[in-house]
Amino acid sequence: MTIAQLETPGLICDLDITERNLRAMQSAADAGGVGLRPHIKTHKTPALAKWQLELGACGLTCAKLGEAEVMADEAGCTDLFIAYSLLGADKAARLRALQERAEVRVSVVSLAQAEILSAALGGAPVKVRLNVDTGLDRDGMTAARAVADAQRIAALPGIELIGVFTHEGQAHKGHNFDEVKAIGRQAAQQLVDVAAALRAAGLPCDEVAPGGTPTAADLASYPGVTEVRPGTYLFYDMMCVECMDLTAADCGLRVLTTVVDLPAERRVIVDGGSKTFFNDQFASWGRAMCVEHPDLRLEKCSEEHGHAEWRGEGAPPVKLGDRLTWIPSHVCPVVNLFDEMTAVRGEEVVDTLRISARGKVR
Amino acid sequence: MTIAQLETPGLICDLDITERNLRAMQSAADAGGVGLRPHIKTHKTPALAKWQLELGACGLTCAKLGEAEVMADEAGCTDLFIAYSLLGADKAARLRALQERAEVRVSVVSLAQAEILSAALGGAPVKVRLNVDTGLDRDGMTAARAVADAQRIAALPGIELIGVFTHEGQAHKGHNFDEVKAIGRQAAQQLVDVAAALRAAGLPCDEVAPGGTPTAADLASYPGVTEVRPGTYLFYDMMCVECMDLTAADCGLRVLTTVVDLPAERRVIVDGGSKTFFNDQFASWGRAMCVEHPDLRLEKCSEEHGHAEWRGEGAPPVKLGDRLTWIPSHVCPVVNLFDEMTAVRGEEVVDTLRISARGKVR
Repeated sequence: MTIAQLETPGLICDLDITERNLRAMQSAADAGGVGLRPHIKTHKTPALAKWQLELGACGLTCAKLGEAEVMADEAGCTDLFIAYSLLGADKAARLRALQERAEVRVSVVSLAQAEILSAALGGAPVKVRLNVDTGLDRDGMTAARAVADAQRIAALPGIELIGVFTHEGQAHKGHNFDEVKAIGRQAAQQLVDVAAALRAAGLPCDEVAPGGTPTAADLASYPGVTEVRPGTYLFYDMMCVECMDLTAADCGLRVLTTVVDLPAERRVIVDGGSKTFFNDQFASWGRAMCVEHPDLRLEKCSEEHGHAEWRGEGAPPVKLGDRLTWIPSHVCPVVNLFDEMTAVRGEEVVDTLRISARGKVR
Repeated sequence: MTIAQLETPGLICDLDITERNLRAMQSAADAGGVGLRPHIKTHKTPALAKWQLELGACGLTCAKLGEAEVMADEAGCTDLFIAYSLLGADKAARLRALQERAEVRVSVVSLAQAEILSAALGGAPVKVRLNVDTGLDRDGMTAARAVADAQRIAALPGIELIGVFTHEGQAHKGHNFDEVKAIGRQAAQQLVDVAAALRAAGLPCDEVAPGGTPTAADLASYPGVTEVRPGTYLFYDMMCVECMDLTAADCGLRVLTTVVDLPAERRVIVDGGSKTFFNDQFASWGRAMCVEHPDLRLEKCSEEHGHAEWRGEGAPPVKLGDRLTWIPSHVCPVVNLFDEMTAVRGEEVVDTLRISARGKVR
């Protein structure tokens, strides 16, 4: 079977491109002597997680407990990091059950959250990393707060402090790849400094883990870093293309569509909208790009209609019924809309991969 | 079991509110003497579709063939309208199979698409409605084009022209409910005029169907309209609250979350982001609102973190671990992220409803 025979819309995973991306990041981690712990939020697919582990990943990162459960049960992963603030008796019970079948690290975002976690676990042991906000302004502690509260956190029943981590997502704001990497290094240095302060205070802090996709390969060689945690790198997407030295040829996950209407001169309507491409409607940059016609970009989405605009000369070079392949703007939420993706080598369909952790928000 | 015992994040369907909304729209349709054919894209849930039919809906509207298959098989619906441009041999084969178990109307967006559809069906009979673009600038024909091409479309093998429809989604642009309704009436009048022109040309055109949620109740009594097709009306959402005469108390679908971090003075982080709330990040109006604290609004989302901002006086009246309930900005893509919703009457959990048509993009 070939791609031309697949119904649309659908997800295509190009295994050649994906493998190249997987191997390149593993090489960067190996060269830096750090662990690679991929974030599975991007693919949510046990088969791809297994591949990452086989190629040398030291373990996996998950956002939600439900994702971690899938990766333990379906990818056989025995070394998991849940980079999320866990609260409540239900989550604690599931965490304890998961600890029976894997080594699990979890995030601590504050002293208050660590107290609730410790109590909910009834003092049962749990390995934690402090979540340091190095500029994203999302969750976690400032560097100063982490240093100030680490001693009390580490003293809570069951809490075993082993390291620090950050998600320097603000690196995406860099105007070019050099700026992106510079932002990443500033974040890494903050994290390294926190780790040094913790060790100076007599606390254990062996693990120092920054590193999202745009910054991970660079930070793998940054002094003091012990692990990187990229997610999108196996696929990349148009947001990565626009802030890193990449092209569409580096992007391993594509959305296959059909042209279902050509209602006006430069307007091409395809059979995937925001329930296929997530919401490209408001992205001011990195819009989904058509592989066959790079001057065709997805301008906005209603739920089941993608509105593409032809930015080239003359009329758009497409006709009703044509099949168009797209690099999405942000690949992670796109994958999360599908139950499966079709794996290909060239034009040949070689497998169907189940996205088992799709929708695991709990 | 009560809502307080549910794990977060999750979807809550308040059956009392939903029932009130369902009955009110059915009453408006009955009063106008028109059919109500709800669009199931909003709930994608067979149990709710069955309820709509039991209360008097004349049939169901679906965007994708896959949604229609679920509604035939799981809701037992025998009268379906697929408001979408169908192309290709795979879709034609599935359409013919679906016609074995339900009466199916489909959309025609252009003469070219009708030719492909007719050929793909091998001339087998299919009931069609012309999709007239009355100002949304999405897919379909202008009124003039519909009148010009209707004769040739109706003459294609198997094509049985029975009516016209429009989705006047541009009504959302009205600054208040009166403007919204005025935009809806302009669209309806265009559609009524097209139908009159078709009949004057000797073509059958019994069905005249405008009517999305903000305009449907009003257009149910508009002269010449025979059917309305709202989707969101059973739940409503913040976008509806802001363009209709509604309040949060009219909104039947809520997102249940937990406060997982309070990292800065006015920043409240909850355990649902864009994979729970879809993408509220860029909406300039109608942001998700907290039911318990209406001055708490969801300002942006990363994938698993909702960033809420407290717009009230003093510190936000929440603490770590609090459970917060939200009216989403746009409910349709939110439901599409979940496998099930919890049905409640007051605080009491009464059922779990399977969202079987979630992700049916093909």
